[in-house]
Amino acid sequence: MINPFDDTYFMKKALQEAELAFDKNEVPVGAVIVMNNQIIARAHNLTETLNDVTAHAEMQAFTAAADFLGGKYLKECTLYVTLEPCQMCAGASYWTQIGKIVYGATEVKRGFTVLKTTLHPKTIVVGGILENECSALLTRFFIEKRNLN
Amino acid sequence: MINPFDDTYFMKKALQEAELAFDKNEVPVGAVIVMNNQIIARAHNLTETLNDVTAHAEMQAFTAAADFLGGKYLKECTLYVTLEPCQMCAGASYWTQIGKIVYGATEVKRGFTVLKTTLHPKTIVVGGILENECSALLTRFFIEKRNLN
Repeated sequence: MINPFDDTYFMKKALQEAELAFDKNEVPVGAVIVMNNQIIARAHNLTETLNDVTAHAEMQAFTAAADFLGGKYLKECTLYVTLEPCQMCAGASYWTQIGKIVYGATEVKRGFTVLKTTLHPKTIVVGGILENECSALLTRFFIEKRNLN
Repeated sequence: MINPFDDTYFMKKALQEAELAFDKNEVPVGAVIVMNNQIIARAHNLTETLNDVTAHAEMQAFTAAADFLGGKYLKECTLYVTLEPCQMCAGASYWTQIGKIVYGATEVKRGFTVLKTTLHPKTIVVGGILENECSALLTRFFIEKRNLN
């Protein structure tokens, strides 16, 4: 039997969140958190709207997922995020003890990989899911931004 | 003329915040953010109360300070925090471009120094202000916690 709930399926959901960010003139990054094939949190970057550099999609998703579960830890959960998490978000993921992180586009300058942020030892990482689609949305955002200024 | 508003003065204010955390059975870490010798944000760890591992004192203080200023960046500000920031909080400080971070006790396992988190290049760091007082409060918390369990 084919499982429709694979990493690509949930990354598409994260991309839909990123598109919501795009429509708000936010850097288009989206995230969902999944447990047992169920989305328990959805979020997109709101740093401009909230005037708050900590309002990355992942941070909001961690808070929302913990609130939904009524527990601080996300050991049985997977974070899907369209852009590789930064130090702050990867550092937050350490505290959540999240089971798995799946990201789309690679963040070559400020991503946790290049900056060697320590993840929780039990966190599995998968990168590059729908990478082209996730990257294309970011590229389109920055091109439109540049053309407007 | 003696300046009463030195690092020790503001660290005492951060310690008062840590004591508020202690009274709520939270790991006692407190923070204040200062601009032009004025405290513009106060916060203490609320991870248990809010059921949210991202609710470190520093994260809340960054959000509150940006809200107070009406701008995302804290270039002219100093963060005073009783315990050395973790990766998440140091990573957040990068995005705020904060001018200076002053911390009390060293966090030898999860602190940003040992984990080599990248700070903003313009952020000045001073550690060890009221280190003994900041450490003593944390030690007292963990001893009481252990004796209760």
